[in-house]
Amino acid sequence: MTKYTDMNQEQLLAEQAVLKKRFEEYKAMGLKLDMSRGKPSKEQLDLSMDLLADTDYVEDGIDLRNYGLLDGIPSCKKLFADLLGVEPKNILIGPNASLSLMFDYIAQAYSHGVMGSTPWSKLPEVKFICPVPGYDRHFTILEYFGIKMICVPMTDEGPDMDRIEALVKDFSVKGMFCVPKYSNPQGITYSDEVVKRIAALKPAAKDFRVIWDNAYIIHEIYDEGDELLNIFDELPKHGNEDMVIEVCSTSKMTFPGAGVSALAASDGNIADILRRLNCQTISYDKMNQHRHVQFFGDVDGIKEHMKKHAAIMKPKFEMVLNHLENELGGRGIASWIEPRGGYFISLDVMDGCAKRAGELCKEAGVVLTNVGATYPYGKDPKNSNIRIAPSLPPVEELDLAAQILCVSVRLAALEALVAEL
Amino acid sequence: MTKYTDMNQEQLLAEQAVLKKRFEEYKAMGLKLDMSRGKPSKEQLDLSMDLLADTDYVEDGIDLRNYGLLDGIPSCKKLFADLLGVEPKNILIGPNASLSLMFDYIAQAYSHGVMGSTPWSKLPEVKFICPVPGYDRHFTILEYFGIKMICVPMTDEGPDMDRIEALVKDFSVKGMFCVPKYSNPQGITYSDEVVKRIAALKPAAKDFRVIWDNAYIIHEIYDEGDELLNIFDELPKHGNEDMVIEVCSTSKMTFPGAGVSALAASDGNIADILRRLNCQTISYDKMNQHRHVQFFGDVDGIKEHMKKHAAIMKPKFEMVLNHLENELGGRGIASWIEPRGGYFISLDVMDGCAKRAGELCKEAGVVLTNVGATYPYGKDPKNSNIRIAPSLPPVEELDLAAQILCVSVRLAALEALVAEL
Repeated sequence: MTKYTDMNQEQLLAEQAVLKKRFEEYKAMGLKLDMSRGKPSKEQLDLSMDLLADTDYVEDGIDLRNYGLLDGIPSCKKLFADLLGVEPKNILIGPNASLSLMFDYIAQAYSHGVMGSTPWSKLPEVKFICPVPGYDRHFTILEYFGIKMICVPMTDEGPDMDRIEALVKDFSVKGMFCVPKYSNPQGITYSDEVVKRIAALKPAAKDFRVIWDNAYIIHEIYDEGDELLNIFDELPKHGNEDMVIEVCSTSKMTFPGAGVSALAASDGNIADILRRLNCQTISYDKMNQHRHVQFFGDVDGIKEHMKKHAAIMKPKFEMVLNHLENELGGRGIASWIEPRGGYFISLDVMDGCAKRAGELCKEAGVVLTNVGATYPYGKDPKNSNIRIAPSLPPVEELDLAAQILCVSVRLAALEALVAEL
Repeated sequence: MTKYTDMNQEQLLAEQAVLKKRFEEYKAMGLKLDMSRGKPSKEQLDLSMDLLADTDYVEDGIDLRNYGLLDGIPSCKKLFADLLGVEPKNILIGPNASLSLMFDYIAQAYSHGVMGSTPWSKLPEVKFICPVPGYDRHFTILEYFGIKMICVPMTDEGPDMDRIEALVKDFSVKGMFCVPKYSNPQGITYSDEVVKRIAALKPAAKDFRVIWDNAYIIHEIYDEGDELLNIFDELPKHGNEDMVIEVCSTSKMTFPGAGVSALAASDGNIADILRRLNCQTISYDKMNQHRHVQFFGDVDGIKEHMKKHAAIMKPKFEMVLNHLENELGGRGIASWIEPRGGYFISLDVMDGCAKRAGELCKEAGVVLTNVGATYPYGKDPKNSNIRIAPSLPPVEELDLAAQILCVSVRLAALEALVAEL
């Protein structure tokens, strides 16, 4: 295999001609393939239909169909407490999306501050640390509230902690978004050392909060999943009990948009959030909470259920990874990580070529996540990162989509190299 | 019947002795009765269990179990559009509670302003008009955001419009909460003239918004319900299309906490809200939206269903009203309105006696809504208003609870009159 960067003019043009032909063939197929969002497939959604089975919606004599139980039904709090490794009193059951839990938390800090601190809206500047590449919807929340985002690069064991330890000395740095397990989009699980260093942070701002978005907490692809240290076990060692707000949901266990979300935090944070929640709602959907408890039973039930998801996801991930290896491996124009869970594969292409690869994909009928979306303000400074979401398309469509992606990446690189000749 | 205020000392003491005896008898029964919140009864909740029947959760080829459709599923938007008399494009389907729609809207105005106006958080003062007595949870939202509440008394056809027309000349008056049909707690439906005058308001503040909480839109008790003018038909006559945000929900049609809410507003307001919603969630619970559409079919289906609720509610309202008439009528110590729908009966007792009546009720095992809750900051200036919520207790319990309430109101009045002797 000759690296593209080592090819001479003749070789580059020959390679380009071959790939252009392949590209035109794909285009002629008039495809409409979607690898843009981490949507579960129909097959995955079908796994949870028993969730909707009849039940009497009564728990401890309480009619769960009526108003009340602002913080969630006890059995559901217990289930998530066991899953997250905290006490039920430190759990709030939320609405159908953990995104709302995060948005509403930042909104609360903006309007009312954090456990008695000055509301962020009253401060001249508020900054957040954003490990990059990251999840676009985290960035969107921060942008909505005018919070300045500071990019910190990911390493293969989590965000660059030296940078973070230096940044938190700034009083205006008020928090950080993390996806600590199977990070979006790279699928990296934070190492024990990274978790320990985050738990040991000494931020200048007392109202510094880490939003610990454990979206893929139990979303393994292989039998042996990554192990993430429970940050709530580490925080008390440093007097940092209040520093972390953890969220997760069943969106990618049962039904996206019709699942249950949960938040874990210290007593002080829970009380702080309940003060707002008491004005915002009477209760979230307790009938759905009850259905989820009935369906899963306990954490082992969740694990068993997630194995069924893994059986569907594994061939899809392997399909994409095989194409990446076969078509892009050894050419010096792309790198990627093989995740052991989560929903995404992060592909780094030749600098300056990601947007063009995305355009070519679109031309051939393959929709990718907007290139740039994995960076704050939608601006990838190197224009090199592409997020691949292999979950939604059936395997045979994914097969084509991955090939088209690879050809597009190669063509984009060739265009750039030929232009430099 | 001699009015208490016309009784001499002897008569007052004799009356007090008789009632004290009755009160002690009730107390000895060790009752635990709840007329505090507008909770539907078990019988009412049972009416909607078919809602949970199996369906395939597909609409127009879209799998409703997956992410997407931020503004709601088309069939559900249509259903609420028909119910509210607006176009589907002017409907957003919300979460399980319209309270969240209202809270989130005020939060949005606070942090981001209204359709481009200065965020309310950046203004020296923001005031809202609150018709009183009113709904405590509206007041709680305003208090949370530090919005100053200005009380405007209700008349028997809606809030005092002369006062409101004068108040909106103040630039810092940014809005008003209304429950225009079967108002909480009085059960008053705004007259056509009141609706027309609200629609014709000329507020100094361009970002003045009327939160039109149509919570009891179709919650009749009798075959002939009150008719509320559709304010969205009136607004364009005055160029006020953007002035009203209407909300409603199925909380008291199907399941409180597991229903569907909806918001109706102008194109401009809908776009303004969607900009925030796009950061706050991916979609609300579309499976639940679909279940509701399947269950109701259309507006006629909702009407038929609400007749079943009426059949349960009517004897309860009549039970309470009969006791009020028999025990309090003609004594010059109480007045009330006989509502034709909604969830509450508002009882005005002798000035200064509401809290004491509430205490006596509690002593005899009857929980009322916190006395004062129907006024901003929980402070009823006359200490005279009591909200009665007759929906939850079974009829036989309600029978006792209403008697205890009446005896307590009479005793409280007698105590005050005897003290004045």
